[in-house]
Amino acid sequence: MDLDQLAERFRVTRQQSEQLCAPLAIEDYGVQPMDDASPPKWHLAHTSWFFETFILNKHLAGYQNFNNQYEYLFNSYYNGVGDPYPRPKRGFLSRPTVDEVMGYRHHVEQHLHGLLAALAPDSPAAVEVAALVELGINHEQQHQELLLTDLKYNFGHNPLAPRYVTEGELSAGVDLAERVERFHEFTGGVVQVGVDPHSEGFKFDNECPRHDVLVHPFRLAEYLVTNSEFLQFVEDGGYQTPSLWLAEGWQTVMDQRWQHPLYWQQQDGAWFEYRLDGLYPLEPALPAVHLSGHECFAYAQWKNARLPTEFEWEVAARDVAMPGPADGAWLESGRFHPAAHRQADEAPIKQLYGTVWQWTQSSYAPYPGFAPLPGTLGEYNGKFMSSQWVLRGGSCATPFGHVRASYRNFFYPPDRWQFSGLRLAQDA
Amino acid sequence: MDLDQLAERFRVTRQQSEQLCAPLAIEDYGVQPMDDASPPKWHLAHTSWFFETFILNKHLAGYQNFNNQYEYLFNSYYNGVGDPYPRPKRGFLSRPTVDEVMGYRHHVEQHLHGLLAALAPDSPAAVEVAALVELGINHEQQHQELLLTDLKYNFGHNPLAPRYVTEGELSAGVDLAERVERFHEFTGGVVQVGVDPHSEGFKFDNECPRHDVLVHPFRLAEYLVTNSEFLQFVEDGGYQTPSLWLAEGWQTVMDQRWQHPLYWQQQDGAWFEYRLDGLYPLEPALPAVHLSGHECFAYAQWKNARLPTEFEWEVAARDVAMPGPADGAWLESGRFHPAAHRQADEAPIKQLYGTVWQWTQSSYAPYPGFAPLPGTLGEYNGKFMSSQWVLRGGSCATPFGHVRASYRNFFYPPDRWQFSGLRLAQDA
Amino acid sequence: MDLDQLAERFRVTRQQSEQLCAPLAIEDYGVQPMDDASPPKWHLAHTSWFFETFILNKHLAGYQNFNNQYEYLFNSYYNGVGDPYPRPKRGFLSRPTVDEVMGYRHHVEQHLHGLLAALAPDSPAAVEVAALVELGINHEQQHQELLLTDLKYNFGHNPLAPRYVTEGELSAGVDLAERVERFHEFTGGVVQVGVDPHSEGFKFDNECPRHDVLVHPFRLAEYLVTNSEFLQFVEDGGYQTPSLWLAEGWQTVMDQRWQHPLYWQQQDGAWFEYRLDGLYPLEPALPAVHLSGHECFAYAQWKNARLPTEFEWEVAARDVAMPGPADGAWLESGRFHPAAHRQADEAPIKQLYGTVWQWTQSSYAPYPGFAPLPGTLGEYNGKFMSSQWVLRGGSCATPFGHVRASYRNFFYPPDRWQFSGLRLAQDA
Amino acid sequence: MDLDQLAERFRVTRQQSEQLCAPLAIEDYGVQPMDDASPPKWHLAHTSWFFETFILNKHLAGYQNFNNQYEYLFNSYYNGVGDPYPRPKRGFLSRPTVDEVMGYRHHVEQHLHGLLAALAPDSPAAVEVAALVELGINHEQQHQELLLTDLKYNFGHNPLAPRYVTEGELSAGVDLAERVERFHEFTGGVVQVGVDPHSEGFKFDNECPRHDVLVHPFRLAEYLVTNSEFLQFVEDGGYQTPSLWLAEGWQTVMDQRWQHPLYWQQQDGAWFEYRLDGLYPLEPALPAVHLSGHECFAYAQWKNARLPTEFEWEVAARDVAMPGPADGAWLESGRFHPAAHRQADEAPIKQLYGTVWQWTQSSYAPYPGFAPLPGTLGEYNGKFMSSQWVLRGGSCATPFGHVRASYRNFFYPPDRWQFSGLRLAQDA
Repeated sequence: MDLDQLAERFRVTRQQSEQLCAPLAIEDYGVQPMDDASPPKWHLAHTSWFFETFILNKHLAGYQNFNNQYEYLFNSYYNGVGDPYPRPKRGFLSRPTVDEVMGYRHHVEQHLHGLLAALAPDSPAAVEVAALVELGINHEQQHQELLLTDLKYNFGHNPLAPRYVTEGELSAGVDLAERVERFHEFTGGVVQVGVDPHSEGFKFDNECPRHDVLVHPFRLAEYLVTNSEFLQFVEDGGYQTPSLWLAEGWQTVMDQRWQHPLYWQQQDGAWFEYRLDGLYPLEPALPAVHLSGHECFAYAQWKNARLPTEFEWEVAARDVAMPGPADGAWLESGRFHPAAHRQADEAPIKQLYGTVWQWTQSSYAPYPGFAPLPGTLGEYNGKFMSSQWVLRGGSCATPFGHVRASYRNFFYPPDRWQFSGLRLAQDA
Repeated sequence: MDLDQLAERFRVTRQQSEQLCAPLAIEDYGVQPMDDASPPKWHLAHTSWFFETFILNKHLAGYQNFNNQYEYLFNSYYNGVGDPYPRPKRGFLSRPTVDEVMGYRHHVEQHLHGLLAALAPDSPAAVEVAALVELGINHEQQHQELLLTDLKYNFGHNPLAPRYVTEGELSAGVDLAERVERFHEFTGGVVQVGVDPHSEGFKFDNECPRHDVLVHPFRLAEYLVTNSEFLQFVEDGGYQTPSLWLAEGWQTVMDQRWQHPLYWQQQDGAWFEYRLDGLYPLEPALPAVHLSGHECFAYAQWKNARLPTEFEWEVAARDVAMPGPADGAWLESGRFHPAAHRQADEAPIKQLYGTVWQWTQSSYAPYPGFAPLPGTLGEYNGKFMSSQWVLRGGSCATPFGHVRASYRNFFYPPDRWQFSGLRLAQDA
Repeated sequence: MDLDQLAERFRVTRQQSEQLCAPLAIEDYGVQPMDDASPPKWHLAHTSWFFETFILNKHLAGYQNFNNQYEYLFNSYYNGVGDPYPRPKRGFLSRPTVDEVMGYRHHVEQHLHGLLAALAPDSPAAVEVAALVELGINHEQQHQELLLTDLKYNFGHNPLAPRYVTEGELSAGVDLAERVERFHEFTGGVVQVGVDPHSEGFKFDNECPRHDVLVHPFRLAEYLVTNSEFLQFVEDGGYQTPSLWLAEGWQTVMDQRWQHPLYWQQQDGAWFEYRLDGLYPLEPALPAVHLSGHECFAYAQWKNARLPTEFEWEVAARDVAMPGPADGAWLESGRFHPAAHRQADEAPIKQLYGTVWQWTQSSYAPYPGFAPLPGTLGEYNGKFMSSQWVLRGGSCATPFGHVRASYRNFFYPPDRWQFSGLRLAQDA
Repeated sequence: MDLDQLAERFRVTRQQSEQLCAPLAIEDYGVQPMDDASPPKWHLAHTSWFFETFILNKHLAGYQNFNNQYEYLFNSYYNGVGDPYPRPKRGFLSRPTVDEVMGYRHHVEQHLHGLLAALAPDSPAAVEVAALVELGINHEQQHQELLLTDLKYNFGHNPLAPRYVTEGELSAGVDLAERVERFHEFTGGVVQVGVDPHSEGFKFDNECPRHDVLVHPFRLAEYLVTNSEFLQFVEDGGYQTPSLWLAEGWQTVMDQRWQHPLYWQQQDGAWFEYRLDGLYPLEPALPAVHLSGHECFAYAQWKNARLPTEFEWEVAARDVAMPGPADGAWLESGRFHPAAHRQADEAPIKQLYGTVWQWTQSSYAPYPGFAPLPGTLGEYNGKFMSSQWVLRGGSCATPFGHVRASYRNFFYPPDRWQFSGLRLAQDA
């Protein structure tokens, strides 16, 4: 454990959050366009609250909170810390201002650097604090992605369709004709999935422990489903055909009057897609994105295929090399929209990491022997293990280095404001 | 008609709206803390939309809209102009920014000044435009008050209890013991109320025509009900006694779990009130404010009294001199909270104008022979004539000069975020 | 006061309630098809509860309740008696059975007859009890009408369209061409309306006291609006034209997706109406019925007319002779649908009484000097005096003898499951 | 395949449904006390609709529907048959009457017997029809249980607490002190679960195919959790401790204000339970019942245990002999409440079958290679495979012979009106 290196990673991560906000007007920081989507300002404050509450308050003697009311205002869902400020009202907090939140951030950062500098390397306190800082860094990375999805929900529903970044080239040079639906076969068997909690490197409690599962032979699609493919589903009446949908999905289609993916719109017969670089004609070669689990399920039914299980995905992904920060698959690309795949030399299954989160058919459940983090931090993951599905792989809004083969993301099957898409599977 | 004078009044009114926003942080401009309460930015834009839509677009040849989408975004409720942007989503419009809205305001102002300057005095066009500008000024004055009530709802529900202005002295030198409940008697008879639509001076269509009504002998309280008096109702179990309430009011008490007026709170047994200058111990001598019609009705029942009718109020008020801008009763006082009454020499009934809007028991209904404004502007008032009650007199957030003896404000009886209070009446 | 006569009127009224249920299957007694519409069984029980609670429990020594839990189960809205069983759950009470409720009725009747027989005529007790029995009889008559409107809501929404009675001839021999829209003029002035509470004969507290009002000259339509006339409004796009509606009405049109009156339906271009005698082609000459106040308002706007005030209606009606029980206008006709007018010799304004309740533009408010009944019975009428409009005249489902010129019925303007229609008025 | 035997089983099953209704008053047949709970009459009609729609209409030449509108009225959720009549409105169908529904039942039965008699044994048509009749019988058995749970919801919420059957002795002779929490260990390994779709005997599509799963070593409680044990959880503040609950479960606790199991109530400090034989003091030795999945999860957390997976349960149950119809565990006992366990000679794990459905932690998901029934019947099970949990074992309201070791029932984790309880598990 190298505390200097950790301090540097902390610094870089915190900076990255602020850089993501550079294109924002002050007005953009406060908007909560739906209950699930928090204002950017709240993300900036809550990630600081996390360091303050779980590290500074407990491990830095004499630490004074920046503002005692923030404990209440910026608690997300930790009942162990007290009743949180109501989630649907986050958009009403015009105060504290952005400046004050930035002050809060820097106050927390300064004291955290102080704490790290004061720790004796390899002391028990250093080990404990380092683990918490590592958790806080990963927590902040998750909120970087959420900040983007939530901002997109805001901008994407504003009739003015504001741009967050300048236009990106996302499918240049890609030959759609080559992007055919092709499956590769896997043999299955009893395989090990998950991570040993005592292994090197950071992992969340929900990835542990490493354990055996039985995977049946299966086939997995080479590419993610594209806009071009998903459009065929739309135009074939997929959103009007109840037999393709789970009952709960069909209810959602009717209640929400879904007719197409979230950010698509039709004008005079032509299809457009809102992206963080603006509103553009739908590009056929790009991966379909912002799909709910239900839409993915229905699409798979329509294709006589299915979603993979999370373990099938992990089996396919575990030996595949991840793209690097310069490969256009991650947040670092600065495009904030899934690009068409262009790397040449690779394992048979493409686009496993980055680009879009891939829905699986697996319900989010505890692994056998799952042990949540001790204390209030045990609320981080475990209490959400009902009614959600697992997604794998990361997205174009995920910071490079944040995900792994064993990484489990989770959302409710009707959720579709994340950078989520799909890869088909079949029984072998 | 003096067009120069009108242009000056236009300029002053527009400036006053912006001055009201001077204490705001950019973050405060966008918050919509409930469906009925719009963001300050929206008020600034909508009042400009009003001038653009009803004057510039129709009377200024070659006028180019500042932004064509604003017609949709900033339409409040005029179906004649097209479907408005959904009211509950006004808080999601981080764009246009405050700067852009200010640009919109100045664009509209510049062209309106140009139009006024180009009109031949007393030409039919000048007469028509002047009437519309007069309406627009009064419209903007109404939104100045709403801007304050909506901002207060935001600040008053923020756990940080931000201050909009510095602390005001509101009851200094007032002897509460003198503020006893005292009634004065009126004889009634057939009297004239309302205004002749062809008379001098501005009036809304809902005040017209002047007509006879029969008023029975009645008694009216000398003072508005104070915090001290209303607190007795609270402490006597008023909010727990269904027999005091209208059925609809009692339903509201139970649904909303009302236990006291909107901005009151109890801490360790002591009562506090949030005001726009901050959170303070409840001052007994100040008028009770932010009461719904239902709370006023229940209080009156408890006192064996009743609310006045709107015509009783008008009879009592018609010959009473209004306080001036320096008398502390109006918006111009800069205190934004109802002050205790301190003027010495006056008609028997005090506090008729300014201070707080006074609920009446009269349903908001058309006068006999009521004729709405022609065209889309006919939607201004008339279509709201159901389920609302009339309030009279203006408040500490009403600009001086805006109201008259015949002026009719109207809200739903459960509404309580306005500067509304009560004066008791009885049959003689 | 003749106690024998009162006992006989009580007997006849009670019997009439049961006769109205003669066509019902046991299954029909329990259904509550919407929150406002109670099951027939509940009406039968609640009207007995009224006699038990307000008379037997207080005036018959040693009276034993039929079942102590009924006090809770069959209380409608009297908070003075305790929290009532929740209104929206009345349809869940399969027990007590119809037989048990009939047993309850007869228990109450037997004891009430016993009480009346035991009273010394003209004793103070007799005077007090007689007044309460009179109130109970009128109360039961109101519930007879509600029983029919609520049953109709149930049957009229059952895809099987069951018949309550056999087909009635309702417009035979009526020449629609004569039923032109014709207005008669009234001079107005200061007139007396309402009733003296100490006068002979039964009246509700909300009709009192008799008092002066000023009525402006007005004109009133000779006939009620017919299906034929209302159909023109429908076909002229009345339900698609926001400018005709009050804002609250238009909101209702959109929320409820209203396209035509409640029991109308269109099949292959032809219009049908569900009546209690079944589903029939819409008869042009019949009065339009089951209209909300908002639909009546919009229709009147479309005709450049307005709804009458309740006092205009009373002025027109006070000297007009009422049709008798054999004239086809009342419940006693046994047709349970408004018939076309056929009487020859009459005042200029037809169909004032019976047929359909006539919406007025008057908000339901207390008369000057209004004094509710003492004690818990004060909740009968007074607490509903907000957000409702007054209807006048009675309907084809009102028992003969129940209404008067001064009788005030009241419903919320969006309500349309009553036998309510409209008569146009204009300023003179 | 013996068609006579099948016809007899059909006859007996149909008769059993009607016998379950023998204690009902006509009034009880129509009540729908919540959206999920259908009226008894609807169950009687819908089970007939199933035979009519999927067998008679397709396989009996010249069959005339009893009433063409019933296709719409009594369709539960098969979109392939057309839009069903809205589920929450089933309680509004006072017509058809009970008599008419019985006529419908007998019409369907008569024709189904006719069809069976006319089929050539072992002909392809006979094979196909027999499979459908078998499905229909199992379908009707499921609705027998639902009829009871739905009726109980109605009776159990009626303040009169009506009795469906006479009092049953349910815990006589059981020594609670012996019923200690004791776990038995299982080794796990790769085991086969589910059923081969081509094997003998009836099974639902969701139990197929038989396939390998990997089960980790585990421990399973000998007995179901009792009222006595669950009461300790209640009294220890289980319903006030968020850390014991899944986030979704805690939200339910707060939204629904849960403080104890569904049919428990406290009077003057003593606990009572409503059962179908009436309201009785809570019997400590009886299994806790009418628990949601969330309550079971929280209880297990509080015990440092967990719910079993559905495969752990199946492993434990597959070789255990089922109690017979006379053993008091099934519907046939006629007690309709889970009895305490009294059989002497048995496998280590008691009460696996009948008594109460046992919640598992397994999300209801398709088995690898799952193939829904062809055509519209494919909607029977598959489309509900999201957000639900699997329950195993049957209950005291399940007909004997209906369930198997592989049988999968499924409900949403907040559902608690079924006869559902829990058995604890632990990692070995």
